[in-house]
Amino acid sequence: MDIAQPSNENKKPNYSAAGYVKVLAPGTVANLVCGFDILGMCLNEPNDLMEVKLLKEKKVIIHSADGYPLPSDPAQNTAGAPLIEMINELDSPTGFEVTIHKRIKPGSGIGSSAASAAGAVVAANHLVGNVFSNKDLVRFAMFGEKVASGVKHADNVAPCIFGGITLIRSIHPLDIISIPSPDLFVTIVHPQIEVRTKDARQILRKEVLLKDAIRQWGNIAGLVAAFMQNDLDLIGRSLEDVIIEPVRSILIPGFDEVKMKCKEAGALGGGISGSGPSLFMLSRDEATAKKVQTVMQEIYNQIGLEYHTYVTTINKTGVKIIAE
Amino acid sequence: MDIAQPSNENKKPNYSAAGYVKVLAPGTVANLVCGFDILGMCLNEPNDLMEVKLLKEKKVIIHSADGYPLPSDPAQNTAGAPLIEMINELDSPTGFEVTIHKRIKPGSGIGSSAASAAGAVVAANHLVGNVFSNKDLVRFAMFGEKVASGVKHADNVAPCIFGGITLIRSIHPLDIISIPSPDLFVTIVHPQIEVRTKDARQILRKEVLLKDAIRQWGNIAGLVAAFMQNDLDLIGRSLEDVIIEPVRSILIPGFDEVKMKCKEAGALGGGISGSGPSLFMLSRDEATAKKVQTVMQEIYNQIGLEYHTYVTTINKTGVKIIAE
Repeated sequence: MDIAQPSNENKKPNYSAAGYVKVLAPGTVANLVCGFDILGMCLNEPNDLMEVKLLKEKKVIIHSADGYPLPSDPAQNTAGAPLIEMINELDSPTGFEVTIHKRIKPGSGIGSSAASAAGAVVAANHLVGNVFSNKDLVRFAMFGEKVASGVKHADNVAPCIFGGITLIRSIHPLDIISIPSPDLFVTIVHPQIEVRTKDARQILRKEVLLKDAIRQWGNIAGLVAAFMQNDLDLIGRSLEDVIIEPVRSILIPGFDEVKMKCKEAGALGGGISGSGPSLFMLSRDEATAKKVQTVMQEIYNQIGLEYHTYVTTINKTGVKIIAE
Repeated sequence: MDIAQPSNENKKPNYSAAGYVKVLAPGTVANLVCGFDILGMCLNEPNDLMEVKLLKEKKVIIHSADGYPLPSDPAQNTAGAPLIEMINELDSPTGFEVTIHKRIKPGSGIGSSAASAAGAVVAANHLVGNVFSNKDLVRFAMFGEKVASGVKHADNVAPCIFGGITLIRSIHPLDIISIPSPDLFVTIVHPQIEVRTKDARQILRKEVLLKDAIRQWGNIAGLVAAFMQNDLDLIGRSLEDVIIEPVRSILIPGFDEVKMKCKEAGALGGGISGSGPSLFMLSRDEATAKKVQTVMQEIYNQIGLEYHTYVTTINKTGVKIIAE
């Protein structure tokens, strides 16, 4: 895959006749334990439903279908900011009217803002005749992440757009590599506490021990090799984070117990999804993934925290067009 | 590949009738730029020639064929220490008499101590009927590295024993993964200055910036993915070290010029081999690898430093038995 760079020439849109498209924008798990800021994985559940209408003027309008309060300025909205970038690279006055059915709870740590950003750009690109590459779409969608968390990161928007597991080798310049992903089951628990991405970033130390960094990059290399060789035991051994997890897990009640008991129940491994509070676990089959779900439910029932759980699989295609 | 652990029961040797074996123990490039302490690559040139004779008593004798001064105590020798570990895990009194023809210059940074250690254990294992696994041999050979540099590391001995490119995900417990390696050409230059591994380790900072660590593990993940997908451009982009190279390269005259001019000559990339002073460059074909060699020669001629160069390929089989 080449490095994505903005083009010097604006693209000529090739408008869709329908002028309307409906997409499913999936949740994503960033970091994958040892791959802080560089790895992400796309999920089949949960996902947002988004409807996008083509406008023939340079304008972006965002509606919430469910009454979530949205910033009135589209530049301050996670779906709006990427679309503003996109229409600035089109040579005819073009705009989009977006209606978001938000089903991935904001602040859950499973890529809610990324789904809005990625869903919007994939839908909009469809309406202008797919003149932009997936790499361009990631570049646009990162502006949504900047609105959401103050940082332009791609470890949710890239897997949401490409599907499967993606490696962001570098942000400047943007370099995205699709990693073949095995057929694993994913169990997610979202304990209903608030962990803001900004806060989860601020508690990290700016310096780390070299010996910990070495252990971490051994695990990342092991995890990438394991995905590519479909070596499930090696996936389990490599899902270890000695740098971020020890700091961030303190923000998540029940973390240690969930991790220990889910592995006892047969999960290969797992940890914090993105910056939390959701936790994810990978399993080799559905029966194990459901056992893991029961373990999660028991733990949060006992703690007395509200939660949602999902049992799902790796989504290998990313944002999906379901109607036009 | 499983994790190597010492067995509780000693092995019964199945002695070779010949009682003698001759092996080629190849040089290796540790770190591979961004994979400090976790990646290593085996070379077809240069290599040590080693002769090993079976003894029926618990004894290790080491001879140098070329007059290199050797410690009289085998426990203090890089070939001897691993053999002492091995014979302690055999259930009959067994020993080895080793003659080393040292052709990989000690202190060159291309795995001279590892070749002695790995060559000795592969040859000895052959003489006792290959009762030990390659993982066991790495475990033994690391005792040689400890004698040589004070640290038990496997990023030279593992590729020397397994061949190809190996990932050491973890040392405790030992976890080695073979990475499929593309058919690349390797150019090595060994400028004749002394860089002791111990010193090269001591100048490293104990803490690194998190942002640098993230950049490094993006590159490592990219390099592993690139090797496995045979993506030569991605290999080139991933051969970047923002942590170790900026510190260690100061010890090596001509480093920046070699790196820049070799890439201009068509090399995919490269850097310090192990802890130096040798430098290596990867190229997609032999013509480029030879052009890179000329560039290296010109630079060190101009600096006025003695040097050796090699143009070679990746050795995919490791230590090789050539006679018995």
